[in-house]
Amino acid sequence: MSDTLFHDLPTVKYEGATSTNQLAYQFYDAERVVLGKPLKDHLRFAVAYWHSFAMTGTDPFGGSTIHRPWMEAGDPIAQAKVKADAAFELFRVLDLPFFCFHDADIAPAEETLAGTLKNLHTTADYLGEKISKSNTKLLWGTANLFSHPRFMAGASTNPDPEVFAWCAATVKNCMDVTQQLGGSNYVLWGGREGYETLLNTNMKQELEQMGRFLSLVVDYKHKIGFKGQILIEPKPKEPTSHQYDFDTATVYGFLKKFGLENEVRVNLEANHATLAGHSFEHEIATAGALGILGSLDINRGDALLGWDTDQFPNDLWTMTMAMYQVIKAGGLGVGGMNFDAKVRRQSFTPEDLVYAHVGGVDLCARAFLKAASIIEEGTYDKVIADRYAGWQTPEAQAMLNGKKTLDEIADDALKNSIQPQPRSGRQEQVENLLARRIYS
Amino acid sequence: MSDTLFHDLPTVKYEGATSTNQLAYQFYDAERVVLGKPLKDHLRFAVAYWHSFAMTGTDPFGGSTIHRPWMEAGDPIAQAKVKADAAFELFRVLDLPFFCFHDADIAPAEETLAGTLKNLHTTADYLGEKISKSNTKLLWGTANLFSHPRFMAGASTNPDPEVFAWCAATVKNCMDVTQQLGGSNYVLWGGREGYETLLNTNMKQELEQMGRFLSLVVDYKHKIGFKGQILIEPKPKEPTSHQYDFDTATVYGFLKKFGLENEVRVNLEANHATLAGHSFEHEIATAGALGILGSLDINRGDALLGWDTDQFPNDLWTMTMAMYQVIKAGGLGVGGMNFDAKVRRQSFTPEDLVYAHVGGVDLCARAFLKAASIIEEGTYDKVIADRYAGWQTPEAQAMLNGKKTLDEIADDALKNSIQPQPRSGRQEQVENLLARRIYS
Amino acid sequence: MSDTLFHDLPTVKYEGATSTNQLAYQFYDAERVVLGKPLKDHLRFAVAYWHSFAMTGTDPFGGSTIHRPWMEAGDPIAQAKVKADAAFELFRVLDLPFFCFHDADIAPAEETLAGTLKNLHTTADYLGEKISKSNTKLLWGTANLFSHPRFMAGASTNPDPEVFAWCAATVKNCMDVTQQLGGSNYVLWGGREGYETLLNTNMKQELEQMGRFLSLVVDYKHKIGFKGQILIEPKPKEPTSHQYDFDTATVYGFLKKFGLENEVRVNLEANHATLAGHSFEHEIATAGALGILGSLDINRGDALLGWDTDQFPNDLWTMTMAMYQVIKAGGLGVGGMNFDAKVRRQSFTPEDLVYAHVGGVDLCARAFLKAASIIEEGTYDKVIADRYAGWQTPEAQAMLNGKKTLDEIADDALKNSIQPQPRSGRQEQVENLLARRIYS
Amino acid sequence: MSDTLFHDLPTVKYEGATSTNQLAYQFYDAERVVLGKPLKDHLRFAVAYWHSFAMTGTDPFGGSTIHRPWMEAGDPIAQAKVKADAAFELFRVLDLPFFCFHDADIAPAEETLAGTLKNLHTTADYLGEKISKSNTKLLWGTANLFSHPRFMAGASTNPDPEVFAWCAATVKNCMDVTQQLGGSNYVLWGGREGYETLLNTNMKQELEQMGRFLSLVVDYKHKIGFKGQILIEPKPKEPTSHQYDFDTATVYGFLKKFGLENEVRVNLEANHATLAGHSFEHEIATAGALGILGSLDINRGDALLGWDTDQFPNDLWTMTMAMYQVIKAGGLGVGGMNFDAKVRRQSFTPEDLVYAHVGGVDLCARAFLKAASIIEEGTYDKVIADRYAGWQTPEAQAMLNGKKTLDEIADDALKNSIQPQPRSGRQEQVENLLARRIYS
Repeated sequence: MSDTLFHDLPTVKYEGATSTNQLAYQFYDAERVVLGKPLKDHLRFAVAYWHSFAMTGTDPFGGSTIHRPWMEAGDPIAQAKVKADAAFELFRVLDLPFFCFHDADIAPAEETLAGTLKNLHTTADYLGEKISKSNTKLLWGTANLFSHPRFMAGASTNPDPEVFAWCAATVKNCMDVTQQLGGSNYVLWGGREGYETLLNTNMKQELEQMGRFLSLVVDYKHKIGFKGQILIEPKPKEPTSHQYDFDTATVYGFLKKFGLENEVRVNLEANHATLAGHSFEHEIATAGALGILGSLDINRGDALLGWDTDQFPNDLWTMTMAMYQVIKAGGLGVGGMNFDAKVRRQSFTPEDLVYAHVGGVDLCARAFLKAASIIEEGTYDKVIADRYAGWQTPEAQAMLNGKKTLDEIADDALKNSIQPQPRSGRQEQVENLLARRIYS
Repeated sequence: MSDTLFHDLPTVKYEGATSTNQLAYQFYDAERVVLGKPLKDHLRFAVAYWHSFAMTGTDPFGGSTIHRPWMEAGDPIAQAKVKADAAFELFRVLDLPFFCFHDADIAPAEETLAGTLKNLHTTADYLGEKISKSNTKLLWGTANLFSHPRFMAGASTNPDPEVFAWCAATVKNCMDVTQQLGGSNYVLWGGREGYETLLNTNMKQELEQMGRFLSLVVDYKHKIGFKGQILIEPKPKEPTSHQYDFDTATVYGFLKKFGLENEVRVNLEANHATLAGHSFEHEIATAGALGILGSLDINRGDALLGWDTDQFPNDLWTMTMAMYQVIKAGGLGVGGMNFDAKVRRQSFTPEDLVYAHVGGVDLCARAFLKAASIIEEGTYDKVIADRYAGWQTPEAQAMLNGKKTLDEIADDALKNSIQPQPRSGRQEQVENLLARRIYS
Repeated sequence: MSDTLFHDLPTVKYEGATSTNQLAYQFYDAERVVLGKPLKDHLRFAVAYWHSFAMTGTDPFGGSTIHRPWMEAGDPIAQAKVKADAAFELFRVLDLPFFCFHDADIAPAEETLAGTLKNLHTTADYLGEKISKSNTKLLWGTANLFSHPRFMAGASTNPDPEVFAWCAATVKNCMDVTQQLGGSNYVLWGGREGYETLLNTNMKQELEQMGRFLSLVVDYKHKIGFKGQILIEPKPKEPTSHQYDFDTATVYGFLKKFGLENEVRVNLEANHATLAGHSFEHEIATAGALGILGSLDINRGDALLGWDTDQFPNDLWTMTMAMYQVIKAGGLGVGGMNFDAKVRRQSFTPEDLVYAHVGGVDLCARAFLKAASIIEEGTYDKVIADRYAGWQTPEAQAMLNGKKTLDEIADDALKNSIQPQPRSGRQEQVENLLARRIYS
Repeated sequence: MSDTLFHDLPTVKYEGATSTNQLAYQFYDAERVVLGKPLKDHLRFAVAYWHSFAMTGTDPFGGSTIHRPWMEAGDPIAQAKVKADAAFELFRVLDLPFFCFHDADIAPAEETLAGTLKNLHTTADYLGEKISKSNTKLLWGTANLFSHPRFMAGASTNPDPEVFAWCAATVKNCMDVTQQLGGSNYVLWGGREGYETLLNTNMKQELEQMGRFLSLVVDYKHKIGFKGQILIEPKPKEPTSHQYDFDTATVYGFLKKFGLENEVRVNLEANHATLAGHSFEHEIATAGALGILGSLDINRGDALLGWDTDQFPNDLWTMTMAMYQVIKAGGLGVGGMNFDAKVRRQSFTPEDLVYAHVGGVDLCARAFLKAASIIEEGTYDKVIADRYAGWQTPEAQAMLNGKKTLDEIADDALKNSIQPQPRSGRQEQVENLLARRIYS
């Protein structure tokens, strides 16, 4: 069996803002140099293997709407190859530099650990061949430690140590495969690292298990000489009632507790941010301020819905703010921007998948260009420099740098009869500036 | 002018579960020994000066409904004393061991820093006299660094260093007063330590300012030999769009970043927990697991409303779970349970204030007694011990204690052909057990 | 193949509040007479066929954890009978008077409409035999018009009229079967009657389609002489972004628009109420005030999660308030209380299913007994009568009954120099009364 | 005392998209003809008297930051005139065609009803003079029936009939004044028409009171020959726990219940929509489909915050969708677009107020122009026509128009062996189209 799902589709090209071709990029001009390097090197877009090739369109109230040739009955390894062929066809159509996968996306599982790992390596070899002939490389690999029933009570945090061992074996092999395929990062998403109810949960023990697991992963990274980043992807809840990697700030505290803050960074997802009650730019800015920004999962949620909708992004304002914070944080390094987004279940045709990516790519490229121009113009740098200017005096620096004690500062304040004066935050004015910049 | 608001009310007494007296405690038997010490020493209830004596019943859409004698025109210091007299009358009526205050609750502000601090010390002396003749002591003091317009852009995180200095002077004096009055703790709530929009905010600088401020406070504590706890009270948002002390996990990371995790603990509020997307017991359990549980602000929110309603608690299930986690974490030490709760604005009579506290005290006492009996019975300890029993084997401990590497664990797993078996989490069954225990 | 999943379990019996038997009812004394009739006739409990027999424990991030004999490969009709046998065994164990089903729960679908309907009638006949030998009857039937991909863009509101026709044929036959099996009600849940995006939606046309469909259903009810109630079950969102039957008030307006307010009532679900931003008691009270209360889906959500968790109820306070409003509204008539609740996916054993129901039944029975005693004591009737007493004067009645015009009322107000006086709402006091009543 | 707050500011003019003048309109070209009439007649912008002239910047955790000359001590009537002078200066600066007010915004209250009404008429006369010399007219008047403590338990729904009478007198006079000043609409916002707890509430009686009140208002409108629209403004909650006018659908049902659906329409606010769990465009489309769209309160909320933030709009996508639905519904007639938005409390300068309005006006104008061009291009009309094309056949129309019964449709479906085929909803593609249209 072979697959020709995307064979007839031409490669999507940059045609500029005036193009009326719905299957062209208006803004993603990969080679355009911005802030000193090509756009593609800033953005490092990746296609998500799971959402694009493994999703069937099910939701909690409905069955599959998406049927692809590789989902039909057949030899599992052969079908995995059909899937891989189609994947690389889509990569060719979209002309994006990276993709990402879970073990379960690329290889069929078996009942036994040994059989499952064998399949993983078989399909990894096949992917290696595909990569060698493609412009699309591996941004990151990861292990799916949440879908199979054995993970129903957690992966590394499972009350059953055999599950911990299973996870260790799986991650070890996924890291091997990621290295073999030239991946730039290895990601851990704690899909069920959390709890349903505290009544049957030993939170302290589970946090210890999770810390140990992460330490093992970091040690193994060094052992095999993997040069990429180890990344944790925060999410606050869903599928569990509470997930331990709630948000960036929580992950930072966890890393500090286990002494891993220089070893591990975060892979931030827009929709996970909003589920945690944060804006996406907040999470990026926080990771930047804490020095742990690693990579992004680019998507959007629906502010009126309480679950992970994983939609393709289309809001230019919030994405521009996100890109602005990325640049301010020094960029993503070997991280990138992975479209962790899925087509709606009514959008079941292959074309829908292409349209969705084209829209997402262009939105992000446009947002990056807007953010870069804002930074080049220095508008907000100036707003902020003015607003915090008072802190540049030696007296203020002395307070900030620990050269004065609390009572010394108090004495000075009384001596000087200080009387702080109100200054406008100018929020509406700076929002207007942004609106004019973004929407024109 | 003198105040006789609560003079005619008899002291509320414990009368047992069958009492029909609405102004008696049915469950708060202060001297009853539970888990080795009197109930009052476990609970350490406190009345909040602000909600009980300073609130006027305003909300964003309406004016004052609560009018007390001390709110009328008059000499500010004299009126502050009338207020204090009324406060100690209510403490006498409720017969609770503690109270808490902000500087702004007990003393009138003046235009100048010097004048404001002078008033603080004048009224603190008066409170000292009241305390000396009362059974009610000071649980904690704090500074209101959010109400005055000078704090509109933050306190220690303000873009204006003069505001930082003003805060330093204020906190220095509030700590002095707290020590003078025998307070057991000093609390910092970052009312406006956060931002409205990232567009005009330097988050990294503001976090540095906040870290410096807390270090100054800790140093000063040691300088003056204050023996109590320094506590941070997390809240995720409101009044700002994002507050830096979002939740327990965030505060823990912040403390680790500034090396203060052994110096500072958290004062957890039920309604702040739920606004952050957590249950109250989650926040307590997290603080317990991280070793930073300090004290509680006992109240409740409304799960269907998106702001801090600060209502008196009346849900026995959630409060029992909270008390259970408190006991599991080793109790509150010199912390306590402060009723950070206010009567609804239609409940403007002095009697409403008494009813509200009686209900809240009894609910918490009942919840504590339930939690203690659950612990004595060991029901959940056994559920948890059974569930995690697998981790007690030497092989499992070797994984947890770092004696095995990732690849060694992987090798063992393959060698042993592990096949983890599903076990029921029994959630409904353990919830039934709890329902039977709580509601009977 | 035969099923013996529940064969060994004895029938759960009422043993009173002091029973320590976890598989006994402490409060559900079916024959106990309360407010003039047996408890079972007030509560009319039903087991949901779908959650109890069709659920596999999948969630958006994980596969099946629940495996029952009838889910294995085999002849579909034969397996449907195995499932029915097991269902009636569980009904026997729980000793509850009713059950509810969707067509898709009881009968296997085929590719064709004709084949699907044939299967429906075949299994319905078998259920008829089971019912005739059982104490458990049919509370209501309904059609699943949301799971199959053909309904992905709606059922009666589908842009494709063939789907409308398919739904008409299905509902016609489900109504026939419901009548044949002696069902007391017929329910419509608009699982996908709503939209994902307004960009591709003609809302006005879809509302017309939905109104027409409901009119057809009502006409057919009369044609076949079905004596039960036609019920709509509101839900605000999920799986769609917006569902047309958002809440009780929305459904009422819809019924009025199509002149059906005397023909159709609501089946209210607790978790759907909270997803719409309402308390369960609010929805019941609203339906009561509007005269359209029909039946209940008894479950609970998780206030911290944004999706339908469909958990078994365990909160005595909120359930007592719900029962209170049911009694105030005059009861449920031929409606009942259906456990639209599922065990957590970790609770995969048959015993978990039994525990879950026993807990839910007892919680509801206890809540009803509490509510009945509150009503018999008249506590809240008196509170309310006092609070609204002013409206009993002839002058007030004249305003309310339309005997005065706006300007006449204004003239009177000025003439009488009215000056309304504040009166406490006494919220904390009445909550205390309730807490004492509920928790003892 | 006189006020010169805005005297020095020039009138904001349309300068086109390339203007770099922050105090110019880039898009609001009032006289530009679009869809057959000038932009100003489509938009009918109004300045809100309360947010612009009465707000002091307080929030639940902080005091006044905004101090205007007319808020200082002085003769209340004289100060009301200073305020009015400043208001008309701002109207002159902004050059917008309308304003809106509450009685309490324009006139000082007194202890007595008579005194309060006298002040209302005095200041109304003064406003009349101002209007006669200004280009800015009255869009609507309303009564503030929520701020004063007498309304703490509701206005027309108050348990005390004297409050109902007070409201009747107030609304009668506010309607008189609105008519006198040439207002185009009269609005009722049920600020406290709802409840805090059902425990002390007779919902059915309160709904009857509210229905009667609205009937009185409608009758009085006809009596005095007021030609404008009577409008209800829905809001789901805040300040009360539940407000009766929850959303458009709820208001529609209420109007139908009291036979007022042809007499009263809705004034929809963006932030109220989102607090109810709806998008703004949803509420507009719903009102359009139900025939009750009247007017708009243009602002935005913060999707991550749970209260009414009343910010100036800056999101082009959602506003374009809102404008699209307005045009589709046939426009706003004598309604308009009122900026029910306030500057942030840190934005306390008069200039901030001007910037805020300029940004809001331009955003809305731009959105309207985008929406108009989308409609002129017919893009979405075609998408929708294609999607629902099947309904144009005679067979489909027969189902929709009631010419077939349920069983007849079922018979046909079986006879024709219908097999509905899936069609893509093309959501991503149509979103891409919109993104390209909006952001360029």
